[in-house]
Amino acid sequence: MNLEVCLNPSDYRKENYRQSTAVVIDVLRATTCIATAFTNGCRQMIPVKTVEEAVAKKKELFPDALLTGERKGLLIPGFNLGNSPREYQPEVVKGKTVVMTTTNGTVALNKAANSLHVYTAAFVNAAAVCKKLQKNDSDVVILCAGIEGRFSLEDALCAGLLADRLSLNFRLSDTALAAQAMYLGYKDDLVNRMLVSSHAQYLVKIGFGQDIPLCLTHDVLDVTPTFQQGILHI
Amino acid sequence: MNLEVCLNPSDYRKENYRQSTAVVIDVLRATTCIATAFTNGCRQMIPVKTVEEAVAKKKELFPDALLTGERKGLLIPGFNLGNSPREYQPEVVKGKTVVMTTTNGTVALNKAANSLHVYTAAFVNAAAVCKKLQKNDSDVVILCAGIEGRFSLEDALCAGLLADRLSLNFRLSDTALAAQAMYLGYKDDLVNRMLVSSHAQYLVKIGFGQDIPLCLTHDVLDVTPTFQQGILHI
Repeated sequence: MNLEVCLNPSDYRKENYRQSTAVVIDVLRATTCIATAFTNGCRQMIPVKTVEEAVAKKKELFPDALLTGERKGLLIPGFNLGNSPREYQPEVVKGKTVVMTTTNGTVALNKAANSLHVYTAAFVNAAAVCKKLQKNDSDVVILCAGIEGRFSLEDALCAGLLADRLSLNFRLSDTALAAQAMYLGYKDDLVNRMLVSSHAQYLVKIGFGQDIPLCLTHDVLDVTPTFQQGILHI
Repeated sequence: MNLEVCLNPSDYRKENYRQSTAVVIDVLRATTCIATAFTNGCRQMIPVKTVEEAVAKKKELFPDALLTGERKGLLIPGFNLGNSPREYQPEVVKGKTVVMTTTNGTVALNKAANSLHVYTAAFVNAAAVCKKLQKNDSDVVILCAGIEGRFSLEDALCAGLLADRLSLNFRLSDTALAAQAMYLGYKDDLVNRMLVSSHAQYLVKIGFGQDIPLCLTHDVLDVTPTFQQGILHI
């Protein structure tokens, strides 16, 4: 079986991956928040593309839902939570439905919705996702959510961690090899290497620098969020 | 000053890089051939996009020129040389004008033609190109020629070698950091890592496997081919 990586979100063509398992990665910070929310007892998450859609979903279907996410990295006015994993504490999310909209992650998730299975991954739940994929019987495509349609280093590095761990189970495409190479090249000094990237520098600037090492921590959350019929669950 | 890498040829937008120095990389095998030809005394090279254009250039302007290049990696019927660096020997190219057309490298070179300066790089002449770029007073963009418009691992790895060596002189963009990470991740076992890539496997299949380690040899040719007004020279 094959493992491919879409380094840019625009490389992902829905029609190519209907029979594949898709893994969506948005390390800084949507898929890290998602893994954190489920670990802390969140019931289900509804990832949507726009603020308007989030508000409408809550109003029409989930009146008790928390509204969460970000625009330009910041809390959306009127929403309950932003996009820092530190906000998704058990006392806040336990038993709750969460409707989330982010600039990149929830958009990528909806793009991948028609694949055979759809999971979300980040460094924090990489081991759990790999365990699931090792039992997989279809090709796998990893979709890096990127930054407003462009390449993002942290998503590629996380894709590389998965590719490296799955290299005995799957045949890696050239972009999967590239991601693997990136991860191997930076893994011994991941936080410092990442801190010079544009997205990390932006997060530092807007006051979320402490999210960066947290989002780069490996394998601490044992959940594999699964996206089915518009809903994320575990 | 900034150093950016276009990992895919489609990421290169001419209008963004008019004031930049462009470095075109096609490791397997056009820019390796170009460095080899100049090292072995070639007078000038005319890189063109199509076979028809190559034939016309020779007929109209350079009647004594050698016609070289490839389609699907193989010698073009009626041409003098293919696209293996082993063919560009001193007794063949010394003092000659070479009109070359390849699937990726010569196309990328023409795409970059309007940048401030345009150089070609490969592993074989990486040190010479870095020396030139260290004295550079403009931003640098490295254009990976890719494979028929797609990502190519070997070009990204060579871009990463340059980015790593220039990281003290330039501010690396996220794609430049990614290329650096790739190079650092694979450099200690470059030939074996590369042999599983799709382009290398194709070259093995058509009988050019021995070109691969040759094209991955670092810093053995002290030339910086420069592209000006349609002509490559040193």
